[in-house]
Amino acid sequence: MTLLAPEAIVRLDEAIPAVVVLDQRRLPETVVELECRTVPELVDAIATLAVRGAPAIGVAAAYGLALAALRGDDLEEAARLLAGSRPTAVNLAWALAELRDDPTPAHARALHDEEVDRCRAMAAHAAGLFTIGARALTHCNAGGLATGGYGSAVGALRTAWERGLLAHVLVDETRPLLQGARLTAWELETAGIPHDVIADSAAAAMMQAGDVDLVVTGADRIAANGDTANKIGTYSLAVLARHHRIPLYVVAPSSTVDLATPDGAGIPIEERDPTEISARFPARNPAFDVTPAALVTAIVTETGVHRPPYTESLAR
Amino acid sequence: MTLLAPEAIVRLDEAIPAVVVLDQRRLPETVVELECRTVPELVDAIATLAVRGAPAIGVAAAYGLALAALRGDDLEEAARLLAGSRPTAVNLAWALAELRDDPTPAHARALHDEEVDRCRAMAAHAAGLFTIGARALTHCNAGGLATGGYGSAVGALRTAWERGLLAHVLVDETRPLLQGARLTAWELETAGIPHDVIADSAAAAMMQAGDVDLVVTGADRIAANGDTANKIGTYSLAVLARHHRIPLYVVAPSSTVDLATPDGAGIPIEERDPTEISARFPARNPAFDVTPAALVTAIVTETGVHRPPYTESLAR
Repeated sequence: MTLLAPEAIVRLDEAIPAVVVLDQRRLPETVVELECRTVPELVDAIATLAVRGAPAIGVAAAYGLALAALRGDDLEEAARLLAGSRPTAVNLAWALAELRDDPTPAHARALHDEEVDRCRAMAAHAAGLFTIGARALTHCNAGGLATGGYGSAVGALRTAWERGLLAHVLVDETRPLLQGARLTAWELETAGIPHDVIADSAAAAMMQAGDVDLVVTGADRIAANGDTANKIGTYSLAVLARHHRIPLYVVAPSSTVDLATPDGAGIPIEERDPTEISARFPARNPAFDVTPAALVTAIVTETGVHRPPYTESLAR
Repeated sequence: MTLLAPEAIVRLDEAIPAVVVLDQRRLPETVVELECRTVPELVDAIATLAVRGAPAIGVAAAYGLALAALRGDDLEEAARLLAGSRPTAVNLAWALAELRDDPTPAHARALHDEEVDRCRAMAAHAAGLFTIGARALTHCNAGGLATGGYGSAVGALRTAWERGLLAHVLVDETRPLLQGARLTAWELETAGIPHDVIADSAAAAMMQAGDVDLVVTGADRIAANGDTANKIGTYSLAVLARHHRIPLYVVAPSSTVDLATPDGAGIPIEERDPTEISARFPARNPAFDVTPAALVTAIVTETGVHRPPYTESLAR
């Protein structure tokens, strides 16, 4: 099992039984697994970001429901707990709905396999947007860790690198929890892709200097009109990219698209503990922001490259 | 001696003799002074940011030259070492030139007093730009700590607060060294001004939500045309403020204006140790960026509010 294999990131171990996740809170210093033997333990792992990223927590929740079935737990209660573990990602509800009528390990694994297949498909579509020698900037971690394997935005970088198109990646460190500096840099190092970590606030100066050809991010939820909720700071990058005439591509599985939410105003934004920002002074800590569709050059899913108007291209 | 008194931030103690600085690296947890008994010790204190902020390091360098004179050191050598301690701020060279013909403690103290007087004057001018109930956003620390007393951008906030104009301040934490989260929040708490610390990347979302009426920052060097070098992230805020039609004011003493540098291209940008960003992965760590004059609504110095075109208004 290699470092970034899908089953190394999240799996169901029926022998224990437990949902086993690579503990992303401790990367890159320590590569250690966390065994969640009950649904409340898994809910805690999701809430505290041991496993994180919209597609990955969908996969983890699917395994969680299968775990609940193995244990003989009340499945409605298990689904309710899992659905409430994080508020912004829509994949959670989607994966739970998929599993509800057949909460078996085989079904959860099939959902996981499909999620990874979707990543490879969207990465192939997205790599077509890179030109030779491209220097990309990415934010947070939309990698194999975030998707349960291969990655969405990082998957696009991996495929572009394999095709000889990608020269270098600037990685926003992504405060407050440093998913870029800890997780994306670790994935890029593992994949052998040249990169530099920068302070989030340095992205503008890098664009000004002409060091960024495209911005690639994931998404936690995409509304029907293309408004995109993603890690706090994505909206900032979108405004900066537009100012510098740099394209911004959102790469995410169609399970992230929420056609029932007409626009970004309907996406709940998680406010996390302010002590993640400051233990000493008052603070505000929104975990996500919403980028208006007008600032998104294209949305890439496993079905292809979607261009504005998104209300039409995403519905197809 | 109160916490934010000018002599609490930097002073010359002739009895030791030493330049004594409040060690800003250890705030807010620990309020402790650092005694620099030699010029190389003071150079190290400046280079490692025990004392920081363009006006404050100018004052510290002036005391340093007076210390060298008391010790009987080679003054040319002392001035050379002090001038090389940080590359971006022009106040260093200015303060050393001021002191060279009369490197006495009294002269250095007079320069310090004048710097604080200039802060109060520019703060009074800048406060005139606030309307009742204003919610400001600031970056890094352009406070009493950075100026040797009262502050430039934070001075403007203090005066606006005293006049009943200011409602609230959002403080960018300011990665990588967190001068906003550590120093500006501490100064605002000491002054009793309501505030919240935010991740640098959250500023855009706060502007989008309508929570920011104006942005106020300091400057490390201002070119003759108004291009402004300041802490990395200031250019980012300037682009974001323009996108959201929010004014951005630069508040800085005229000692920060470098009429000999025609525009921002001539300002050297310090690249600091990449391990400040990541000890584990490759990183880039520019300490400053340059905001083009076109994105600066006004530059406020002790002489008044300067509007574009700055080539004319700054030269006057």
